[in-house]
Amino acid sequence: MTNLDSSYLAELDTPAAVIDVSRMHRNIERMQRCVDGFGVRFRPHVKTSKCTPVVRAQLAAGGRGITVSTLKEAAQFHADGIDDILYAVGIVPTKLPQVWALRRRGCDLKVITDSVASASAIAEFGRAQGEAFEVWIEIDTDGHRSGIEPESGALLEVARMLRDGGARLGGVMTHAGSSYDLDTPGELAAMAEQERAGCVLAAERLRADGLPCPVVSVGSTPTALSAGCLDRVTEVRAGVYVFFDLVMHNIGVCTLDDIALSVLTTVIGHQVDKGWAIVDAGWMAMSRDRGTEKQKRDFGYGQVCSVDGTPLLGYALRGANQEHGIVWREGERDADIVARFPLGSRLRILPNHACATGAQFPEYHALDGHGLTRWSRLHGW
Amino acid sequence: MTNLDSSYLAELDTPAAVIDVSRMHRNIERMQRCVDGFGVRFRPHVKTSKCTPVVRAQLAAGGRGITVSTLKEAAQFHADGIDDILYAVGIVPTKLPQVWALRRRGCDLKVITDSVASASAIAEFGRAQGEAFEVWIEIDTDGHRSGIEPESGALLEVARMLRDGGARLGGVMTHAGSSYDLDTPGELAAMAEQERAGCVLAAERLRADGLPCPVVSVGSTPTALSAGCLDRVTEVRAGVYVFFDLVMHNIGVCTLDDIALSVLTTVIGHQVDKGWAIVDAGWMAMSRDRGTEKQKRDFGYGQVCSVDGTPLLGYALRGANQEHGIVWREGERDADIVARFPLGSRLRILPNHACATGAQFPEYHALDGHGLTRWSRLHGW
Repeated sequence: MTNLDSSYLAELDTPAAVIDVSRMHRNIERMQRCVDGFGVRFRPHVKTSKCTPVVRAQLAAGGRGITVSTLKEAAQFHADGIDDILYAVGIVPTKLPQVWALRRRGCDLKVITDSVASASAIAEFGRAQGEAFEVWIEIDTDGHRSGIEPESGALLEVARMLRDGGARLGGVMTHAGSSYDLDTPGELAAMAEQERAGCVLAAERLRADGLPCPVVSVGSTPTALSAGCLDRVTEVRAGVYVFFDLVMHNIGVCTLDDIALSVLTTVIGHQVDKGWAIVDAGWMAMSRDRGTEKQKRDFGYGQVCSVDGTPLLGYALRGANQEHGIVWREGERDADIVARFPLGSRLRILPNHACATGAQFPEYHALDGHGLTRWSRLHGW
Repeated sequence: MTNLDSSYLAELDTPAAVIDVSRMHRNIERMQRCVDGFGVRFRPHVKTSKCTPVVRAQLAAGGRGITVSTLKEAAQFHADGIDDILYAVGIVPTKLPQVWALRRRGCDLKVITDSVASASAIAEFGRAQGEAFEVWIEIDTDGHRSGIEPESGALLEVARMLRDGGARLGGVMTHAGSSYDLDTPGELAAMAEQERAGCVLAAERLRADGLPCPVVSVGSTPTALSAGCLDRVTEVRAGVYVFFDLVMHNIGVCTLDDIALSVLTTVIGHQVDKGWAIVDAGWMAMSRDRGTEKQKRDFGYGQVCSVDGTPLLGYALRGANQEHGIVWREGERDADIVARFPLGSRLRILPNHACATGAQFPEYHALDGHGLTRWSRLHGW
């Protein structure tokens, strides 16, 4: 439960994405302290919020540079005054002109690669334009997506291709996204160590070959908060921690009271015989993300809270159409559903996945001790 | 496969939402002819596209008025010159001032209700403002969401409340959304008849009680295309038919070659040992909708097509992170994945659910015989 005055929420059109600013600052401080404790730099991933005031708060707390998931984020946040930006999706030749244009405008934009073909294209484009792109090599430490395995011969091949082609070898980076499938402290700590050890191994293999590797960058919210050791790592990245969500709750790295993003909704009807309340937050508001479906606790499309943010345990948004959500209680039908959630009353729904839910809204409503402020966010590419 | 020139797609930034305009027109004509064949009006639901040129094409083909899922759609399309609008989500008191403002600007905006509490609030607000709101009563013909059962006593109670309170009783409407769970012509025809019969019964009960009920409105894409009889129905509504999608394909009301919306994506990497191609369409582009997961054929996050729109059967976007999609072949690992889908090559992905995928993009790129045009779409509420 927040101690903020939720009466400000009475006037908002619904559905609306509400940020509890005090929770957000608490989450930012927690992650920053955690990473600071290892003496390592922290580079927040802005793909969760895509929102300038949120990112400013992350940098004010000690974040050094940002990670982005799209070049649109890079352009926007560079226009906001941020220079040190990592674009953490494998670069392809067709996107190099955009990267180059940003670098020429003074953005210290770094790209990543995990293949000889891509490294070759970067080198070739760089030579043609007279631009030494800074490139980090993506390392695969958990098999969940992209990257080169730390022991692979391709690692040295890619690095030499970049160096010989005139690119600047900035370092190695990895993301242990399979940490999202875990839910015990022991498993998470082991995955954090696997992520660290794999990325460090890759860096050491490069250095042993006489190749530069100043940066060793690891991270995901679950592993960042579970690491026991970050030796020889130089920076950590994480994103969703800024808001947290129900998936992170199930993984075990936050409580319901840490979740800073919720969807404000209005009760628009009931099906009394079924014990249902119908609300105006459907999947268009919550997103179609059902990330808790296969976790230890399935929250449907979200955990129902009273308008002041208190979780109403057992009540979840269990069904969703485009602009309709269906709330019911776990177990026995709630015969008092109309009295409990009267027509026109307001609820707040905690999301499964803050990155997906935020993306459904053009703006957040930031709730702090002074009231509400509109914070716009990016949409699209 | 389309006969449009896909070379226009070589220059687009990816991911991008592409509309095959010839398929879209074919889909519009098909639905309009189908409904015209019953001598019934057709009111397209614009929640799928939220896009002015698409809606204009639907009206040019014979659509009469539109259905909207948000008041933002109502305001936008009224500004575009459309007056006859049905807001097909149960109205709540807090939204009545917006409805009233639109009506005062000349918008013939109709609202729906399914409860005495809501009917009472409409009547009260209408009396206070001197406005006779036009209200349709929502009927529940399949138990999937909102509405009053046709035989229910509440039906007459709500109707009398509206009439006595000075509102205008416009008619009854229903949406058999559970048609999405079916996949045989027989089941679909039966559901269409259930939808029709229930809505007609509700209308006749109102008329027998001396209450007006000029409109009897039914529809969903699957039932509209499967109805054997629409006797005593006055209008049909449907939305997703304009683009169709993989869910509709699995239901059996379209072929892959009818799907007019696709996501253009670029191959950004590979995991050769796994037979994976990594593309830049992740769930942020496709949406998190996994609507085909429980249908007879699971397409993952989408069916992979070559850039000219030819489905590459067996290849689907089977994994997705925010900005990464993972493509692999069903069954045996594709050892030739790099040669088949080289770095930088382009693919088009057919979506599970066109309404959800479209919403991820600020604009469509409409591809017709003259090339590409940007069509903006609404986002948010």
